[in-house]
Amino acid sequence: MIELLAYFKNELPLINGFLDEETSKLEGLVKDVARHVLLAPGKRIRPVLTILSARGLGYGKDDIYPLAGSLELLHAATLLHDDILDDADLRRGVEASHLVFGTTETILAGDVLLALANKIGADYGKPRISSVLASGIMATVEGEILEIAHISEPLMNRDTYMDIIIGKTARLIETSCRLGAILASDDRAMEDAVGNFGLNMGIAFQLVDDALDYESPSDDTGKPEGGDLKEGKITLPLILYLEMLQEKEAELLLAEIKSQTLSDEKRVHVLAEIRKHGLGARTRTYAAEYVEKAKSCLDPLPEGEEKQVLKQAADFVLTRKK
Amino acid sequence: MIELLAYFKNELPLINGFLDEETSKLEGLVKDVARHVLLAPGKRIRPVLTILSARGLGYGKDDIYPLAGSLELLHAATLLHDDILDDADLRRGVEASHLVFGTTETILAGDVLLALANKIGADYGKPRISSVLASGIMATVEGEILEIAHISEPLMNRDTYMDIIIGKTARLIETSCRLGAILASDDRAMEDAVGNFGLNMGIAFQLVDDALDYESPSDDTGKPEGGDLKEGKITLPLILYLEMLQEKEAELLLAEIKSQTLSDEKRVHVLAEIRKHGLGARTRTYAAEYVEKAKSCLDPLPEGEEKQVLKQAADFVLTRKK
Repeated sequence: MIELLAYFKNELPLINGFLDEETSKLEGLVKDVARHVLLAPGKRIRPVLTILSARGLGYGKDDIYPLAGSLELLHAATLLHDDILDDADLRRGVEASHLVFGTTETILAGDVLLALANKIGADYGKPRISSVLASGIMATVEGEILEIAHISEPLMNRDTYMDIIIGKTARLIETSCRLGAILASDDRAMEDAVGNFGLNMGIAFQLVDDALDYESPSDDTGKPEGGDLKEGKITLPLILYLEMLQEKEAELLLAEIKSQTLSDEKRVHVLAEIRKHGLGARTRTYAAEYVEKAKSCLDPLPEGEEKQVLKQAADFVLTRKK
Repeated sequence: MIELLAYFKNELPLINGFLDEETSKLEGLVKDVARHVLLAPGKRIRPVLTILSARGLGYGKDDIYPLAGSLELLHAATLLHDDILDDADLRRGVEASHLVFGTTETILAGDVLLALANKIGADYGKPRISSVLASGIMATVEGEILEIAHISEPLMNRDTYMDIIIGKTARLIETSCRLGAILASDDRAMEDAVGNFGLNMGIAFQLVDDALDYESPSDDTGKPEGGDLKEGKITLPLILYLEMLQEKEAELLLAEIKSQTLSDEKRVHVLAEIRKHGLGARTRTYAAEYVEKAKSCLDPLPEGEEKQVLKQAADFVLTRKK
């Protein structure tokens, strides 16, 4: 992991510098909101993946930071709007923006970041950058829509769950990788290779995120423990638990979770059962499979530092604690 | 106006057909929201301007409808988010979406329409389309931000008012015209000519809109009479009235309007004063100047039907009653 850490250490100040500069230019009302969410400590996974994908395909120029940063702008925009939808209290360990700045300011800040990301992408003058960027946003919003739509449906299976996490998380990570490749080369096969790497890594990333929600106390993730269960979000550890129950029992429990009428007592019981049966760990096993798949997607790439670092980044997904 | 009406009559079914088809493909949760706002009777000014600008510069292909329609998607997205911000009751004469479908669905529908418009633009493979589209969205959101930011400021003058209406309305109308020109030609001077036409026409459009708010009963505009005054929005007819008052009196009144603490009695009085002094009509006089300016921007365009229709469209802005 030495190469990965060194890579992050080199690139983070440049990415953060871009975000600092770009958000400082925004209009007063939304500047504070944008800076609140963007300058809070973040992993910057998406920008780093864009940089790694471009460099791994031989791109040497320094004009990569706006494109890389635009992925973080997009991600922040979705976080801002999602937190309003979820009425979340915390984000990245700090109070959610709409509670600090108001819903109006937060909706508008999200809109401005979406527009800014598209503008930055368009300014590279490569039509495919705009197209892939727009598709990535589209998929992300559709994933979120699918997730919310399923809260009011009586059933939830693994296929639907996969569709949701691919949409709301993996597609934007795929997009991050694709954009780096597009900047570096017009070779569609290479773009697809790093794109598929990103897609599989993104799936693993969300699986681990959903496992963590059942594993860690709130001060590690910045979110309350079992928060998904409270919010009525059905993720893989819970689906695995529901599969263990009798059909009637599962249906009843699912209905209570979705309608957010689960008693505290029952919630504590479900959390304990999921832990007892190691369903978080089983979710991580699935994540590990996607990490392996992601790494194998990199086979067509030329050997070099970035290829190694991309593989380490995929492995890192499995070890993260928050 | 015969040519203008004939043009609308020809193009409207094609634009509406595109919007119908495109929104029918959306995910369940947001499909109804998108169709609610997009299939309600609308003037389709933006798409028609895109078509006129392209045809006026000699563009003959039929692939123009997605690009033209994307402007209506963008406009609808801003309406959806704005109505949440304003907590509006009515839009285009029908109940505002967030009251029918919920805030979550409405935020997400706005996001999806923004993404879809960018995607459609990107698919034309012309970088300048994506760039102009992104700038147009950016300016529109910034205009809205400026308007909301100024609600909490103690002053409002004509310059700020102009900045706001240019941002929130005129830039997207300028964008509609520019995009048609870009599709038709790489001649930047022609793009600027129709762009400036759109900008000036857009300013006139909003001036008339703001005049109408003080003139028409609610069943004509689909909005309550004097709605801007109630919502604390400071538009030109009111600014002209404030300029007639003593400074102290103006400041006091402005403070009450902005904090939405104006009594019904005072509101009725202000509405009557603005009518008595013909300040709506004076606002229209300014609009007429921008219409003339808009028409003169068209001088470099080749003579032909579309040039005439564009001029008629600008004139039409002054005569509309809703």
